[in-house]
Amino acid sequence: MEATPQSSPPAPRRPRSWRAYLLVEAVLLAVLVGSGGLASAAGVLTAAPEQPEGCQRPDRTMQLYAMELPRDPETGQIRLGYGTSAESASYPGPTIEMVEGECLAITLHNEVPATTLAQLRTDPNHPLGVSLHVHGVKYTQQSDGTVHSGSFVPSGQSRTYLWYAQKRNPEAGTPGTAGYWWYHDHVVGNAHGTQGLNSGLFGGVVVRRPGDPRPDRTYVSVFGDRQTINLRRGAAADTCDPYNPQPGPTCLVARKGERVEFIVIGIGNDMHTWHLHGHSWADTRTGVLTGEGAAVDNTPIIDNRTLGPGDSFGLQVIAGDSVGPGHWMLHCHMQFHSDAGMSTMLHVLDENGQMPPGHGHH
Amino acid sequence: MEATPQSSPPAPRRPRSWRAYLLVEAVLLAVLVGSGGLASAAGVLTAAPEQPEGCQRPDRTMQLYAMELPRDPETGQIRLGYGTSAESASYPGPTIEMVEGECLAITLHNEVPATTLAQLRTDPNHPLGVSLHVHGVKYTQQSDGTVHSGSFVPSGQSRTYLWYAQKRNPEAGTPGTAGYWWYHDHVVGNAHGTQGLNSGLFGGVVVRRPGDPRPDRTYVSVFGDRQTINLRRGAAADTCDPYNPQPGPTCLVARKGERVEFIVIGIGNDMHTWHLHGHSWADTRTGVLTGEGAAVDNTPIIDNRTLGPGDSFGLQVIAGDSVGPGHWMLHCHMQFHSDAGMSTMLHVLDENGQMPPGHGHH
Amino acid sequence: MEATPQSSPPAPRRPRSWRAYLLVEAVLLAVLVGSGGLASAAGVLTAAPEQPEGCQRPDRTMQLYAMELPRDPETGQIRLGYGTSAESASYPGPTIEMVEGECLAITLHNEVPATTLAQLRTDPNHPLGVSLHVHGVKYTQQSDGTVHSGSFVPSGQSRTYLWYAQKRNPEAGTPGTAGYWWYHDHVVGNAHGTQGLNSGLFGGVVVRRPGDPRPDRTYVSVFGDRQTINLRRGAAADTCDPYNPQPGPTCLVARKGERVEFIVIGIGNDMHTWHLHGHSWADTRTGVLTGEGAAVDNTPIIDNRTLGPGDSFGLQVIAGDSVGPGHWMLHCHMQFHSDAGMSTMLHVLDENGQMPPGHGHH
Repeated sequence: MEATPQSSPPAPRRPRSWRAYLLVEAVLLAVLVGSGGLASAAGVLTAAPEQPEGCQRPDRTMQLYAMELPRDPETGQIRLGYGTSAESASYPGPTIEMVEGECLAITLHNEVPATTLAQLRTDPNHPLGVSLHVHGVKYTQQSDGTVHSGSFVPSGQSRTYLWYAQKRNPEAGTPGTAGYWWYHDHVVGNAHGTQGLNSGLFGGVVVRRPGDPRPDRTYVSVFGDRQTINLRRGAAADTCDPYNPQPGPTCLVARKGERVEFIVIGIGNDMHTWHLHGHSWADTRTGVLTGEGAAVDNTPIIDNRTLGPGDSFGLQVIAGDSVGPGHWMLHCHMQFHSDAGMSTMLHVLDENGQMPPGHGHH
Repeated sequence: MEATPQSSPPAPRRPRSWRAYLLVEAVLLAVLVGSGGLASAAGVLTAAPEQPEGCQRPDRTMQLYAMELPRDPETGQIRLGYGTSAESASYPGPTIEMVEGECLAITLHNEVPATTLAQLRTDPNHPLGVSLHVHGVKYTQQSDGTVHSGSFVPSGQSRTYLWYAQKRNPEAGTPGTAGYWWYHDHVVGNAHGTQGLNSGLFGGVVVRRPGDPRPDRTYVSVFGDRQTINLRRGAAADTCDPYNPQPGPTCLVARKGERVEFIVIGIGNDMHTWHLHGHSWADTRTGVLTGEGAAVDNTPIIDNRTLGPGDSFGLQVIAGDSVGPGHWMLHCHMQFHSDAGMSTMLHVLDENGQMPPGHGHH
Repeated sequence: MEATPQSSPPAPRRPRSWRAYLLVEAVLLAVLVGSGGLASAAGVLTAAPEQPEGCQRPDRTMQLYAMELPRDPETGQIRLGYGTSAESASYPGPTIEMVEGECLAITLHNEVPATTLAQLRTDPNHPLGVSLHVHGVKYTQQSDGTVHSGSFVPSGQSRTYLWYAQKRNPEAGTPGTAGYWWYHDHVVGNAHGTQGLNSGLFGGVVVRRPGDPRPDRTYVSVFGDRQTINLRRGAAADTCDPYNPQPGPTCLVARKGERVEFIVIGIGNDMHTWHLHGHSWADTRTGVLTGEGAAVDNTPIIDNRTLGPGDSFGLQVIAGDSVGPGHWMLHCHMQFHSDAGMSTMLHVLDENGQMPPGHGHH
């Protein structure tokens, strides 16, 4: 049955909803921020962040810069990125790794010009700023990265967000936050950060639990609109130089036997299916299957997985295990997506770091 | 290999398929029902329901009324609803809770005018009626709620459906039916009940297993077409009065520390992703993670989940755990869906039932 | 953090990527193949296949024929199929069953006329051929079935593919390949085999682990574009003769109590949800729930599952368990898909192989 009311003292009923209040507040914030310098008067932008329960004080601090980057060479779209320095900003942004029990303070510096942010919004009443919204880990409303909570950063300003990787506590019924997550802007363009996401403001998060397997390499694979992987497609999705491969968002390369980790994220509006040739993984928290017994034996093994916007999962595979070196396709298995260029390769070199002869490379 | 035939005695081959027979039967039923009063002659509408194996007799009975409700204020669409009384009909309908081993008899009274049902069908040969089709629990063909089985209810009539929540039996290989399910019409408009679903004829079902955690509050969250949550969107999806919040389909509210259960259901034609800010859950039968060991440690923790039409899942979270009170967004993470208003809030009050100052509410 | 480079010796940087090399190679292959007889000069088409690690020699061999079949009666589309003989080719192709530890050599004979393959390609530089790409099991690049690896078969030629069903090895971190998989062409029409898939070049694979339950019947259920099940819809999806049902892709029939296995596969461009009336299954590797304990109790039970292109899963149910004989609908729960004919039936007969009276069949 629907829950019955039990939380409210008798009070004269008012016709206005919380939603209405929050909209008013968002507009008020926009006006305050827009008028410059009055933001701190609102008392929400300069305060030290509240601590989620379990976080006594930050164990670690980190600087994160939101930057404007060169426009997309194919589409001319505005590109933004996060970086641990202004110079290293990219899309995806830096992968942030935590361990359960850790509390991390991230200071976000918004160096994206307000004029750029203004181009990305459709509603003149929507505030201009950049934020940091994270999946999975714990944070209070002050670190939510949303408009209604005022937890965003106007251009030229900074704000500290506090993330807590909660431990599993079976007695309290908390499952822990170990897993593969992601962070992204939630305010550029509109209240859901749609233009921030489109422009490149996202990155991967991994929270490890003691005992978790550690990868030799980690790649972030973001499947998004316009048949893109990490916002690129076709030739731009795989720029590996065969003579000098530099691992990065557009060059997935590993030696045979290395443990390769993928953080897989869906953004935008479309469904996708993430498929890797020659390799498969367990449908578990890490993609690895530990332990014994019936429940472990019940676990599905997969090599293709449906991925919707906002979903994230991770997996670890041994590069070339059983199958050997070669150019292993990694693509969306929706045919019209792969046909339009939503396809790249995991290049598995031999143990000496060479691609053997006869593998499409003379 | 494909299974080889082994079930049929030699017989002269006839060119007509079961599908053809079922179509003829459905039209015959429509004619009988449409002509009034002859329905009982068909012998399918007034019979006591067959019992699924394991159900000796009903442990409990329930009355359910299918009603026409005021039209949708935004779209003008016809709205129908189920209720435990004629007066309480709503969309979603009442949540039906069972325990494994229980057998439940539900008498459905169709009080929707035939003229309304006629407006919702496109094929004049399709019968007019309302039905009850349920996921997960066991029922015979007489309780299937489909046209071809004749298990539906013409306007002004009643029919009893029998549901059995089967227990897990490892020896027989039956997995049990504990889980988060849903019920819906399967005949309004066409043979798949598409117009019944569009109009509001659906509700949540939870089957509990002894030992399952019990929630303090249960909310049903149905993601459907036209970017709707429980058939509403935008301001209509969150009508919580900040001074006097009344828990219900359009007001998700809890005190910090309460165990809140969501029954999440997909209807219609579109894919969605269900995302809740500040809270995460285990990808298990209940959203809770019980036990110890490697298999438990392998279980993914998530805060965003892809949901297709017909899918249902459930989860329980501790409201505000670690993250505190506040307005926590609950939205579809497909950006164009959330941007179009497929977004609401879980309002987490403090332990005293108040929203603390500085949380968007003065 | 992104992985840092560590695999390459210093070398003069060259601007060409592996992708560019692979494209050149594919075109070169096309020219060689197209010119006839020179193919063997490329050294990739006639070689004995490399063995994946763990496969000493093939335990079993199999012949597979790719054939052109009569065109689709509804759409006029070209239809292709795989068969264990030229005469038995069909869509879906034969279900291939393996056990973990087994190594299988499959010789594919491409008997599809080159003129037919030419009709299916849009790019005159794309090579003409048919291939065998498999999910889940292990294979080297020579058995990948892709253009860039040259592992496809021109018309009138043959090629042997080697598949290895790897065992689980907890120490090495390999999860095993037991599961429900599928095989398909990856070269007809373009580099992703989109036209091969559209035309019917796919089939199911099941890899069993010792101790897995064995079904009495296996059905393959491929959900694809244009609201199709196994490329049929509406009346063509269920052609069961009520007097003489012959189990097959368009006639799903079982006696009550039989263990029925479904291999469910998604192809094409669209999302689907696979729903079966009256039956449910555990969301595990086999659909069956073995063992005891908390982790087993945490496992979701479902009767509807989202399925994207490339996804495959399997399940086993006891036909008619608790619910009895009858015509049990099996359909996509996306309403516009089922309304357009993406719907069939599992016909469950009684223990004597008869449909009881009163079940839509006089």
